Amino acid sequence: MTSKPIIAITMGDINGIGPEIIGKVLINKEINKICTPIILGNIQAYLYYCKKLKKYLEPVKINTPEEALKLKNKIGIIELEYTNLNIKPGIIDPQNSISATAWIRQAVKWCTQKRCDAMVTCPITKEGLARAKIPYDGHTTMLADWTKTKHYRMSLFAGNMRVVHHTAHKSLLNAIQSINKKDLIKTIEIGYNALKIICPRNPHIGVAGLNPHAGEQGLFGNEELDIILPAINTCKKKGIPCSGPYPPDTIFRRMYHGEFNMVIAMYHDQGHIPMKLIAMDEGVNITLGLPIIRTSVDHGTAFDIAGKGIACEQSLYHAIKLAIQFTKKKDRFV
Amino acid sequence: MTSKPIIAITMGDINGIGPEIIGKVLINKEINKICTPIILGNIQAYLYYCKKLKKYLEPVKINTPEEALKLKNKIGIIELEYTNLNIKPGIIDPQNSISATAWIRQAVKWCTQKRCDAMVTCPITKEGLARAKIPYDGHTTMLADWTKTKHYRMSLFAGNMRVVHHTAHKSLLNAIQSINKKDLIKTIEIGYNALKIICPRNPHIGVAGLNPHAGEQGLFGNEELDIILPAINTCKKKGIPCSGPYPPDTIFRRMYHGEFNMVIAMYHDQGHIPMKLIAMDEGVNITLGLPIIRTSVDHGTAFDIAGKGIACEQSLYHAIKLAIQFTKKKDRFV
Repeated sequence: MTSKPIIAITMGDINGIGPEIIGKVLINKEINKICTPIILGNIQAYLYYCKKLKKYLEPVKINTPEEALKLKNKIGIIELEYTNLNIKPGIIDPQNSISATAWIRQAVKWCTQKRCDAMVTCPITKEGLARAKIPYDGHTTMLADWTKTKHYRMSLFAGNMRVVHHTAHKSLLNAIQSINKKDLIKTIEIGYNALKIICPRNPHIGVAGLNPHAGEQGLFGNEELDIILPAINTCKKKGIPCSGPYPPDTIFRRMYHGEFNMVIAMYHDQGHIPMKLIAMDEGVNITLGLPIIRTSVDHGTAFDIAGKGIACEQSLYHAIKLAIQFTKKKDRFV
Repeated sequence: MTSKPIIAITMGDINGIGPEIIGKVLINKEINKICTPIILGNIQAYLYYCKKLKKYLEPVKINTPEEALKLKNKIGIIELEYTNLNIKPGIIDPQNSISATAWIRQAVKWCTQKRCDAMVTCPITKEGLARAKIPYDGHTTMLADWTKTKHYRMSLFAGNMRVVHHTAHKSLLNAIQSINKKDLIKTIEIGYNALKIICPRNPHIGVAGLNPHAGEQGLFGNEELDIILPAINTCKKKGIPCSGPYPPDTIFRRMYHGEFNMVIAMYHDQGHIPMKLIAMDEGVNITLGLPIIRTSVDHGTAFDIAGKGIACEQSLYHAIKLAIQFTKKKDRFV
């Protein structure tokens, strides 16, 4: 048994920037010191992109996560059966979506079996999934289905800024209409379960309002008084350190200055706008509420720059680090 | 005649931080070099707060804006009839709201008569207005009414970040339901009329979507396809350099990096969240579409710190500078 967690990194679409940012991040000695990374991906693709870089770890074909524990200055890659893929940077090829999906599925299995401690995902393409007739529109829906998870929430973490989204990929009108007390309590609970691992000292959650000025006592909407405040009060009674609802336009600045270490955002852009603005390359996407630990880069396949050697690996670096943070106290998280 | 514009600064609520930040900003030599400021306010209040500061300009009672042109190293204050007010930092007193409103009204008159070139407002209190039974909830509604303006828009400017809000103080649900093509065209036009003064070279307006990912081709809402895109196309035909709708979560970052020099936000918090996060003390509120130039500080009365000498005058400084920028090419603006 090793004390270093095994982190399964899925390569994502091999015609996107996944293989390149994996190559770049793995030469970071810190990463290899604090975890045993394995790649679920394709050796050919790894080499195709990495040979354009100054330096990269030599790949070794492995079949199980445990084999990686014996490697030194090499990176274990699990290919499954997908060895002859069509590497064409920037091109959508449904075959790549099929292999990317298989790698994700295998990572989920090994995380569920605790043979891997966490999984970190590189980007896949929604269009490729659709063309391959894969019945999911992205990682989150796959992961929820395969782990049989009903309540999960999309979060963005960047340094001391952490946002959990109450609703995500739906129209703003639907997002407003679907807000209810029961689900909001669940969101706050899911957020708190993560926060107490990351910030065991003085965790405090700020809950955003939905309307301008948090509704200004009902002047600009009643959701704060009718739904959000009652949900906060219930969570407080359960012992969750949370408060609000606060005016959405200043809550993120207040978190930035340390008043909260997590914010519950009511809808996608309420949380994404500040995080994308301030996080720059540090942003990490994390699906909370799953029975496994999964973090992800905060960007897409970036087909336009794939293979050019200019993709930035910072988000992947932070995604791996955050996954490791969660594994350290995994028992409290899952 | 002088080439320096006369800027009417209204003191706002004398129990808030208005008098103090005015005192602080006026000792900035740059301000006195580029404009002739006058205060519409109360001499007693000015002295009460300024005597706590290290340095301040000596006040002189004047009755008309023109008298200020002769002053040197002194500041002209127009009191109207309000000379015996109750100065109690942090306390809401309806009498103060009445005087603050009278000062604003006089500034509007002088701007309309072109005896002042622009007005810059310090904060008033909504609760005070209500208690004084003044039939307005803030500056914007007063200004619109007194200048008989139907189409005006709230904007926030901070350095190279400029946001014009399509809707402002209404619930998010109402904001969504009230978006229509005709009004959106007006918003873009109002924004452009301001932008071409401030950025005559290569002005470009980015228009935000309403929904996550700007609706992703109708997947998360249809407002982009049904309303926003057609409005943009109409504006393009009118010669306005604009494009979009863009995903709301990255458009502000793109403006920050110079891709746009103005963004049209669909609702209050879409624009306020990024601006409050990144602008810090530089933010300026400006009402666009009025026949006069009016800028404002981007904060409230801050009753909790009034009279403590710690209020920051940076927003007022930038509000004055922005007002001056507009006056220089006033003919194109009004």
